[in-house]
Amino acid sequence: MDSPDRADFLAGLKPGGKYEGVVGLYRHNVSTDRIGLFDKEIIDALAAAGVKWIAHNGAGYDQIDVLYCKEKDIWVSNTPGAVDDATATTGFYLMISALRCFSRAERTLRAGGWKSTHKPGEAHDLTGRTLAVLGLGGIGLRLAELAHAFPMRIVYHNRRPNPDAPAWCEYFGADRLDEMLAQADVLSVHVPLKDSTVGMVDETMIRKLKRGAVIVNTARGKVIDEPAMIRALEDGHLGAVGLDVFPDEPQVNPRLLDFPNATLLPHMGTETCDSQKKMEIRALSNLRDFLTKGKGFDIIPEFK
Amino acid sequence: MDSPDRADFLAGLKPGGKYEGVVGLYRHNVSTDRIGLFDKEIIDALAAAGVKWIAHNGAGYDQIDVLYCKEKDIWVSNTPGAVDDATATTGFYLMISALRCFSRAERTLRAGGWKSTHKPGEAHDLTGRTLAVLGLGGIGLRLAELAHAFPMRIVYHNRRPNPDAPAWCEYFGADRLDEMLAQADVLSVHVPLKDSTVGMVDETMIRKLKRGAVIVNTARGKVIDEPAMIRALEDGHLGAVGLDVFPDEPQVNPRLLDFPNATLLPHMGTETCDSQKKMEIRALSNLRDFLTKGKGFDIIPEFK
Repeated sequence: MDSPDRADFLAGLKPGGKYEGVVGLYRHNVSTDRIGLFDKEIIDALAAAGVKWIAHNGAGYDQIDVLYCKEKDIWVSNTPGAVDDATATTGFYLMISALRCFSRAERTLRAGGWKSTHKPGEAHDLTGRTLAVLGLGGIGLRLAELAHAFPMRIVYHNRRPNPDAPAWCEYFGADRLDEMLAQADVLSVHVPLKDSTVGMVDETMIRKLKRGAVIVNTARGKVIDEPAMIRALEDGHLGAVGLDVFPDEPQVNPRLLDFPNATLLPHMGTETCDSQKKMEIRALSNLRDFLTKGKGFDIIPEFK
Repeated sequence: MDSPDRADFLAGLKPGGKYEGVVGLYRHNVSTDRIGLFDKEIIDALAAAGVKWIAHNGAGYDQIDVLYCKEKDIWVSNTPGAVDDATATTGFYLMISALRCFSRAERTLRAGGWKSTHKPGEAHDLTGRTLAVLGLGGIGLRLAELAHAFPMRIVYHNRRPNPDAPAWCEYFGADRLDEMLAQADVLSVHVPLKDSTVGMVDETMIRKLKRGAVIVNTARGKVIDEPAMIRALEDGHLGAVGLDVFPDEPQVNPRLLDFPNATLLPHMGTETCDSQKKMEIRALSNLRDFLTKGKGFDIIPEFK
């Protein structure tokens, strides 16, 4: 893909264009910078060109209108598992930073203030505290595993219990979600972004957490109602936040920079050479299997 | 202890002074700000006043001339165990930050640059990498336990094998120290500061690490030869450092602030309300046992 912009990309897909004959695509989110999201216009052009498979590099595929792909008979695969370790480690780091006030501590040191902003009693050990995982899939489970080493108590909410969850992960269904939130010292968000999850962590959910609780987000920024989260930071209902994702990346709401108790990373969740390699291999393996066997193995749930 | 300065403290210990009759002391490092280190002058005054026990709040007691205390028949206890969890978590955080380039990433985001300073391939997963623990006592063992959850491979060097170490902690004696250093992705320092450990992590030891290795220090700044570490950061031999301690705290060598790949915390190792409480209880229990039973249980090794 060497198109500098969307027009060039669409032109390339036309009969006689430079992409003529393409049946499968390896897709990376960085393509958005040049050709934009995979919306109906792009998907129509791909379908017309004869594309049958999009092997997306990444766990989250919210930049692709997958339901329209389904309608147009273009399969989509992602790279589940490949990102679990790196993303869960990021969530783990954010949780430690939030509970221990480490991000603020480093900023104070670098500003020449040593530990002058630290108030004894504000920082907490992880051991014995309760981590609530919202969306216990591969990443949430990996985070649970790491946190269990302290041990932390692990509770989680999915629509249905995860059959892979070990016994020490306590399940809370929709009927007991409030109960789970009231017990959480940390709420870590791991649901994919879709219409049904936009703003899922809203004012109501945030206020059901105990005062001083921490929110960690390594999923997608739009899953959290950002204004509601900011209000809860302002009035002290939330003790801290650890965010790797934001609603309008790469833009970060400047209001977030003001909170001493916010640890903010620029979507570093999968940024390791190890996981990038795993993701590439996984995405390309799906494309290879589509070409050689007719079908890749990581077909996204929407197609099942 | 309400003395504003050393003169007042020494006067108070004299016959008729406000501290007359004191036989045991609860000591916290913050006292240094007012009366200075527990050197020969202070210890002579304590001995003359009849003090028999110093219950130090902390694992490290390098601010007390304990050998002179022994000579003067004043026992010293510390608070081993109480700080293990909080300090190991700090080391763990620094290790993640160093391997994942998180501290720099947050600084770049806050400066408005999103992830522009991040070079793909620079960040690494912890899983499968080798953590070398220099000084596997309570804190080192706790760090090993947390890192083992990934798992990382754990190797360690003590003068003698730690009988509490599980089988997955591989011991390297003095004769195989070089071999251990050559295998380490991360060297985490956990030896106490004493005459024999000042500058222990020196040019020779640092250069025996593989190129790109990471050093984490949550012990004491003076255990590392700081100029040698800085040279190794300058020429790229060290990939990153994570430091919670510095040779001249609260002063931080301004040169360290220049390295993008340095995560710097202001001695936050034991700064949690949980561990502070555990340490206070442990120190005060030693004092109570001295008063009621004649002996506290955490007598430091120098007295054994």
